[in-house]
Amino acid sequence: MSYTILTGDRPTGSLHLGHYVGSLRQRVELQQQHQQTVLVADLQGLTDNGSNPQKISTNVLNLVADYLAVGIDPHKTTICLQSALPALAELTMYYLNLVSVARLERNPTVKSEILEKDFSRSLPAGFLVYPVSQAADITAFGATHVPVGDDQLPMLEQTNEIVRRFNRIAGQAVLTECQPLLSNVSRLPGLDGQGKMSKSRGNTITLGADADQVHKAVMSMFTDPGHLNVNDPGRVEGNMVFTYLDAFCEDAALVAELKAHYRRGGLGDMKIKRLLEDCLQSLLEPIRTRRAEYMADKGELLRILQQGTQRADQISRQTLGQVKAALGLDFFTLN
Amino acid sequence: MSYTILTGDRPTGSLHLGHYVGSLRQRVELQQQHQQTVLVADLQGLTDNGSNPQKISTNVLNLVADYLAVGIDPHKTTICLQSALPALAELTMYYLNLVSVARLERNPTVKSEILEKDFSRSLPAGFLVYPVSQAADITAFGATHVPVGDDQLPMLEQTNEIVRRFNRIAGQAVLTECQPLLSNVSRLPGLDGQGKMSKSRGNTITLGADADQVHKAVMSMFTDPGHLNVNDPGRVEGNMVFTYLDAFCEDAALVAELKAHYRRGGLGDMKIKRLLEDCLQSLLEPIRTRRAEYMADKGELLRILQQGTQRADQISRQTLGQVKAALGLDFFTLN
Repeated sequence: MSYTILTGDRPTGSLHLGHYVGSLRQRVELQQQHQQTVLVADLQGLTDNGSNPQKISTNVLNLVADYLAVGIDPHKTTICLQSALPALAELTMYYLNLVSVARLERNPTVKSEILEKDFSRSLPAGFLVYPVSQAADITAFGATHVPVGDDQLPMLEQTNEIVRRFNRIAGQAVLTECQPLLSNVSRLPGLDGQGKMSKSRGNTITLGADADQVHKAVMSMFTDPGHLNVNDPGRVEGNMVFTYLDAFCEDAALVAELKAHYRRGGLGDMKIKRLLEDCLQSLLEPIRTRRAEYMADKGELLRILQQGTQRADQISRQTLGQVKAALGLDFFTLN
Repeated sequence: MSYTILTGDRPTGSLHLGHYVGSLRQRVELQQQHQQTVLVADLQGLTDNGSNPQKISTNVLNLVADYLAVGIDPHKTTICLQSALPALAELTMYYLNLVSVARLERNPTVKSEILEKDFSRSLPAGFLVYPVSQAADITAFGATHVPVGDDQLPMLEQTNEIVRRFNRIAGQAVLTECQPLLSNVSRLPGLDGQGKMSKSRGNTITLGADADQVHKAVMSMFTDPGHLNVNDPGRVEGNMVFTYLDAFCEDAALVAELKAHYRRGGLGDMKIKRLLEDCLQSLLEPIRTRRAEYMADKGELLRILQQGTQRADQISRQTLGQVKAALGLDFFTLN
């Protein structure tokens, strides 16, 4: 069965191995048999970067290059730019009237993000209402499935509440409810094992990292601090090298064997790091090359983004047209 | 000097004599020498009618007919429909990031409207943020002047805060600050003298009211409850018939003379009511006729609204283009 999938990212920086494991790899698979739209969510990126729009605008093409480099195929997946799709903003305006301020303030995802970002008293209105904008994105494309982590489930519930409320007012099923597409991959921790990967913590490897950066990053990875001599028994749990080997080494039998050896003692950190580095270098080498090729031809990147956005524009306008018709506001269309 | 003026109304019901005195009459004058845009603010109307969109959609053409009937000339004034102007929604999305939730909650106009409308715990997000949408309307047309009452001044201050914040971030004067165009006419009270005119209180005369309705309304008006016999001295202050004569009788000398006579005693309520009725009938008769003609040709009404909206679309898209360019988000335009 073919799903209609919406996913995307805020263009706030280069994508890294955490994104690769958590979403990009899945998207490359999903595009084979599903209708997939990937949104470059620049408007959403601005909701907590209102004073620093350059951070968003300069990362738009980086993000597209990352997508293409990992194998998201613009002939199979619609890659599109949020700010170039007026129907998304228009749908947001209608949906804002169907959600109470109190409901938005109760949204658990937004609540924890507010704490994390420390807006304190100056929470931007755009940030409070971004779940409504996300509902516009999801419904505009008629998405039936949205890939999310557990922490994003409240966002989909918010979307479905809007869908049900709108359909009840319209007296017909204009909008489609969505389901989560939960990933069975757990989130990849940072190189230092201290929480999630983030560029600002410097505990990550970006998709465009060069061979030397990959080498240094792997060599600096946390293993088992109690594993001082090669012959000592070592711990595999919480050992980032094994966590990453689980995520990136395709030879699961080999990894299982190495884990047993490491636990017994007699396997040095350098050996497992070399294996991990081999895996990562062979994964990243072609990605890096393709990424550099795309970045050297921004006209082509823009052309690909524009073509996808054109397609997305047609679909999102259709949904907007249905919403306006249901509200009785379909008086005319402009030339 | 020619101003760029933005004004408009929520299409929530028929316009009445209060609108005529408070804004419509002024607009007919302003269009002679200024660039005036009048917005049929249906999106804003939905912010507190989210569950009842028919109330808005069914009043859009009524509002346009009212405008034309009183003499707003579509060749001089741009009459346009908010929901058909995507740039307004898009600008709102950008501006939402430049205003804090706390600032919106402090807006005195919104605060008093929230109390008045008794949303209690379910304040729609769209209502809280409508000052931001209004800032989008004002700036989209580069309005230098906005006709408002005293109670709306905080809305313009909110708009100008957004303008200054945006221009500071952009490092250039992309958006234009606006000034209030304060009316020297005080608000016309209801026929019963109990606060402002409102359809729900039944203390108003709509612009489309027929001759009999006008007659009955005038005859039922509050005068001086202490003025029981014709020969008694009467009070002019708080006497709605004189308040209305001040607003609608062009012969100010006659009204002054009648006031003196009424105060002395010897002038009956019926006489002043007949004079007021004459004034109102001769004002409303041609308005009613033109209004009925327009309502009998909705295709023409739609054509006029569409032409104005088309013009407004071009202007608002230009502003949006400048805003997006300043943010670095002008990657391409779609076909």
